[in-house]
Amino acid sequence: MVSTRPPSGLRDFFGSEAQLRHELMTTIARVYQSFGFLPLETPAFENLDVLMGSGGGAENEKLIFKILKRGDKLKSALESSPTEQSIADFGLRFDMTVPLSRVVAEYRGQIQLPFKAFHMGPVWRAERAQKGRFREFIQCDVDIVGAKSSRAETDVIQAVCEVLRVLHVEGFELRLNDRRLLSAIGSSLGLNPDEFESFAILLDKRDKMEPQDLLDEMKALLGARMNDLVARLLKDEVNLESLKSLAPDVVEEVSGLLTTLQSLTLPLSGVYFDASLVRGLGYYTGSVFELRHSSAGYSFGGGGRYDGLIGRFSKEAIPAVGFSIGFERLFLLYKEQKQASLMTQREGLCVTVMDEAYRGQLLSLSSQWRAQNLAVSVYPDMAKLKNQLKWASDQGYRWVVIAGSQEFEQNKIQLKDLSSGQEILVSPESLKDHLVS
Amino acid sequence: MVSTRPPSGLRDFFGSEAQLRHELMTTIARVYQSFGFLPLETPAFENLDVLMGSGGGAENEKLIFKILKRGDKLKSALESSPTEQSIADFGLRFDMTVPLSRVVAEYRGQIQLPFKAFHMGPVWRAERAQKGRFREFIQCDVDIVGAKSSRAETDVIQAVCEVLRVLHVEGFELRLNDRRLLSAIGSSLGLNPDEFESFAILLDKRDKMEPQDLLDEMKALLGARMNDLVARLLKDEVNLESLKSLAPDVVEEVSGLLTTLQSLTLPLSGVYFDASLVRGLGYYTGSVFELRHSSAGYSFGGGGRYDGLIGRFSKEAIPAVGFSIGFERLFLLYKEQKQASLMTQREGLCVTVMDEAYRGQLLSLSSQWRAQNLAVSVYPDMAKLKNQLKWASDQGYRWVVIAGSQEFEQNKIQLKDLSSGQEILVSPESLKDHLVS
Repeated sequence: MVSTRPPSGLRDFFGSEAQLRHELMTTIARVYQSFGFLPLETPAFENLDVLMGSGGGAENEKLIFKILKRGDKLKSALESSPTEQSIADFGLRFDMTVPLSRVVAEYRGQIQLPFKAFHMGPVWRAERAQKGRFREFIQCDVDIVGAKSSRAETDVIQAVCEVLRVLHVEGFELRLNDRRLLSAIGSSLGLNPDEFESFAILLDKRDKMEPQDLLDEMKALLGARMNDLVARLLKDEVNLESLKSLAPDVVEEVSGLLTTLQSLTLPLSGVYFDASLVRGLGYYTGSVFELRHSSAGYSFGGGGRYDGLIGRFSKEAIPAVGFSIGFERLFLLYKEQKQASLMTQREGLCVTVMDEAYRGQLLSLSSQWRAQNLAVSVYPDMAKLKNQLKWASDQGYRWVVIAGSQEFEQNKIQLKDLSSGQEILVSPESLKDHLVS
Repeated sequence: MVSTRPPSGLRDFFGSEAQLRHELMTTIARVYQSFGFLPLETPAFENLDVLMGSGGGAENEKLIFKILKRGDKLKSALESSPTEQSIADFGLRFDMTVPLSRVVAEYRGQIQLPFKAFHMGPVWRAERAQKGRFREFIQCDVDIVGAKSSRAETDVIQAVCEVLRVLHVEGFELRLNDRRLLSAIGSSLGLNPDEFESFAILLDKRDKMEPQDLLDEMKALLGARMNDLVARLLKDEVNLESLKSLAPDVVEEVSGLLTTLQSLTLPLSGVYFDASLVRGLGYYTGSVFELRHSSAGYSFGGGGRYDGLIGRFSKEAIPAVGFSIGFERLFLLYKEQKQASLMTQREGLCVTVMDEAYRGQLLSLSSQWRAQNLAVSVYPDMAKLKNQLKWASDQGYRWVVIAGSQEFEQNKIQLKDLSSGQEILVSPESLKDHLVS
């Protein structure tokens, strides 16, 4: 018999957990829309050459799930010493930013700038599956294309923070840096491009390495160029002011953005400058930011300015900034918070059918109740009342409708509260008024 | 430069069209939930052996996008005379029913029957791309697992019809048949399994073939067994009653279902028995149904009872019934209906910033307006007021907020109605009251 487990690193969701995921997705989309972002929908897979060489996405490019060519093309590829390159033509997207950039380039004539879009859905990475790391996971991106100034950063950050406010999740902080400051530090140290990359990758590992190991590796990399600034960088002791001499304009811009963000009473425990924040080396050209939570050592999302990416697909260089919420991690937090209420109760009511002669009437009443915005599940088979009540209880329903000839003769129904066991006889029209806590 | 077109048969959506798709998805999910169905979320791809041999899905199995093995496994497969089978391990799902069946088998211990779930998302088929036929398209399924009786059919049909009612789309009819009636006809003709399959495939082509060609092919298939019943079947002239002698119990059941459906005042132009309705030969074991529209010769969705499919993944045979809305076709109809309002207006308002000194205050006011359920888009860059107003107009906004020192000194803002050109000075608190038509 065929194995029914999903492929390694992939997951199935059903029941109350799936319901909660659906709610969270809906909430995020609603908040993004409330900021005037419109949806963007792109295919699950792209031509491989769109995904490859997207510039520094090198890490992700290794993780592309590739799709086999089909028909004659596959046949001829298999006949002449096939390679990984010759037998595949498409790849599943590994993020939302590359497809967005392709879309802006392709439909440039139909898109008015600034273009505000949100882009939510699964992405796929062929990583070795491990605890908390999946091969299919959802990202919830919000982007502004065609805005040069940090007003765009403010807009996407405010939108993401509004999601946190609406969810009542607390304890998040935002860390902020600018790629141009990192470059200025690199220049001041006299690093060549390769050395700069190693320098940035090492900085990016700051949270994952022992301080002494980090210091040793940095010394090995920089040799005589190791200085006090780098030492303080490794200890998160570099404030924005101290970089003023290296890049005065950038410092002023970052400072302005920080001031704006701090004035907005965002639902965060803090907004901080972090001179050692790196994030995806390939894309970002200006601001970079990251959402962290006091309870976890990892990021819940991040983003920044990628003024160079669209230019890879188009003759026109168009500035862009985006913020991506890592749905899976936020979901874990949201689920934890909701768990108590989740397990005990389900919204709406369950309608039992003890006499099939009255199913038609119960179906009609159910339609009327749904028109009052109640979720109504009619038991969808024939079964003993006892079994129907057990099902309703197992599903988490508190309210159950029971009605047969005795009730219908009086134009009434029984409303049973499974939490107390109490039953009351009510008119169908007044049912909603009785669903009290 | 890399081509920015999506792969053939795949599509990008943005702007008002994407917004409309998002609205339609949200509406369908909301209606399904109002019937007590909970979401089901399964991965985009499955192990190939789950997708292959799913029994009569043969047509679809040819259309699977296969995913290349990775790392050492790929390497060793490529080294020893690679075949399509040896180099791929996963496949993109081609429908929602196979993954649902796998999930029920895998988590049987955690799932209470009857299990009511909705399952929405893209599926992929490597068909030759042609007008109106895509390689990635969305299906919106609703299923009940573990209910034997036609009460389950009623529930899924009612839920799908409620979607039509909420959307105010008219002109749909439901056609209904039962696979067991088709089998009874086959037996009465003395067809062996292969002949029966050819017979059913031919019937399924009824709408696509010239009547005379159809008749000729049927005669060629049946030879001396061709009879009056088959001739009437080809002309859609077989009523339910006339099959009573062949399968009395089934006729009674179908008749009961028809009576129930007709009593429900569904938003359909009709509910009909159609003795020649076949649909996916592989899955269905009992009822089959199809949603058609008077404006189009194709189906907008369909479903039926597949009591055998879960048994392919499990020792336990579990009855199941489902209904799938073809999202893409419904969307075209919905879009047509919405087009007029869609192109002229966008909900919410656009806030312009003519003096950066007041951006902070405008951002705060925007938050307050959002808390009143208004969608508010603040212009996300620095630009001349004229350009900001043009952008607002191009985006389809009717209402624009304009405010600088002059207005803020009076604690007021200007609210501009782009449809009339009129501006009024209002207090920020009362803004919502002025957004009238």
